[in-house]
Amino acid sequence: MKIGLVQLMVTDDKEKNLRKAEKFVRIAAEDGADMVVLPEIFNCPYDNAYFRDFAEEKFGETWQRLSRMASDNKVYLVGGSIPVLNCGKLFNTGYVFNRQGDEIHEHSKVHLFDVNIEGGVRFMESETFSPGTTFGVFDTEFGKIGMGICFDIRFSEEWLKMEEMGAIMCVVPAAFNMTTGPAHWELTFRGRALDNEMFMVGVGPARNMDMSYHAYGHSIITSPWGEVVDQLGFDEEVKVVDIDLSLVKKIRDQLPIVNKRRENEG
Amino acid sequence: MKIGLVQLMVTDDKEKNLRKAEKFVRIAAEDGADMVVLPEIFNCPYDNAYFRDFAEEKFGETWQRLSRMASDNKVYLVGGSIPVLNCGKLFNTGYVFNRQGDEIHEHSKVHLFDVNIEGGVRFMESETFSPGTTFGVFDTEFGKIGMGICFDIRFSEEWLKMEEMGAIMCVVPAAFNMTTGPAHWELTFRGRALDNEMFMVGVGPARNMDMSYHAYGHSIITSPWGEVVDQLGFDEEVKVVDIDLSLVKKIRDQLPIVNKRRENEG
Repeated sequence: MKIGLVQLMVTDDKEKNLRKAEKFVRIAAEDGADMVVLPEIFNCPYDNAYFRDFAEEKFGETWQRLSRMASDNKVYLVGGSIPVLNCGKLFNTGYVFNRQGDEIHEHSKVHLFDVNIEGGVRFMESETFSPGTTFGVFDTEFGKIGMGICFDIRFSEEWLKMEEMGAIMCVVPAAFNMTTGPAHWELTFRGRALDNEMFMVGVGPARNMDMSYHAYGHSIITSPWGEVVDQLGFDEEVKVVDIDLSLVKKIRDQLPIVNKRRENEG
Repeated sequence: MKIGLVQLMVTDDKEKNLRKAEKFVRIAAEDGADMVVLPEIFNCPYDNAYFRDFAEEKFGETWQRLSRMASDNKVYLVGGSIPVLNCGKLFNTGYVFNRQGDEIHEHSKVHLFDVNIEGGVRFMESETFSPGTTFGVFDTEFGKIGMGICFDIRFSEEWLKMEEMGAIMCVVPAAFNMTTGPAHWELTFRGRALDNEMFMVGVGPARNMDMSYHAYGHSIITSPWGEVVDQLGFDEEVKVVDIDLSLVKKIRDQLPIVNKRRENEG
């Protein structure tokens, strides 16, 4: 299976962000991607001051264009996330489309990013966003794939649940920063992959020093053995990475964690 | 709080192993250790062929001498683990003693080490051992401390439970090997520490090339920020490491994972 990582640099021009996404999805598809993944909040700067102005209702402009990117390129598209307005409340929501452009999954970030680190980043996402409430998986011809958004990855129990729902891979549109990125990004993606013996795919925006929030980039794929399959740098880049999904069963058989967990549930 | 890591080299001479443990616990105590931790199966080679012959019933020779090591040196002693015979069944069991030599905790390994890795280690602990059934924490003047043994660390859900029981640190007598050690030892200790924002202490035996099982050593302490505080090498060594337990509250406040998890439980 080939995964397209779209580490785009988000600006405060929504149309420019969307056009760039369209271009990068096309490039990834031309390079053979089966599934393309965009970063968290890819059509809007990651900044509480912008979320409400850039927000759309479901089936709005961005949703329509994501659906077309999927069907035009015949790829699964994990459309990162965007600020979504629902009955007056804002959510950090991602949509997933199949190769025909039909929406097959929706996830609103459950664990909002409220941190205040001495000498590091401060961000209070809950000042603007409301939290989602559920996690789930979606079906593809490759197997079931789970999804979370950024800070969701901190909560190991959610990824256990997705593995139990049958996930052999999970995708995580994200936007770690220059404090938590170097400290925890790779560690957390390696750990979730190993603990659940599945692939993890994390896609972040490229670093943009003109914006208030300095994203860490470093879009990453980790294997069921806990290794880094590939990882990008800070800059804007689109890359297609081939992964061997047969590793999931092989490692679950040879080093039984996931299988043993089930035994201990009774 | 000062933690003594006793990375002793286990041989097939039980008396020699016990004397070495006594000597190393004394050295650690003289160096100021509040708590000393021994490795998994420290009085017996880690090999199914030896477990039954070396096994003792509870309150046997090894238990008595561990209790004395604690009271003589006025330290908390996490007595690694030993093969213990109970009603005909063998368990991989660790005992914890307080500074007066009273047993304050007992843990039998819940997740037995049954792996068969292509080109790597094969071991079937369940051929001789029966599994324990519960995890728990014990009280000290420093706070609550949880405990698991070796392969138990693979199961992230158990460490969440111990954190929820109030653990600010967990100790793990272990014996990783030359396949899983380089691949997963540090990753897993860093991950459990970060996910639960607590200290993790892992102690393994030194590598002994005369035995069938080649332990990885690398006794380790990781911090609630997911960093390695200290890590030994392959060789026999006793080391006392000072840790700052105030980091637990500080990191839980600044990067709320543990606290937020509780909010989402309701």
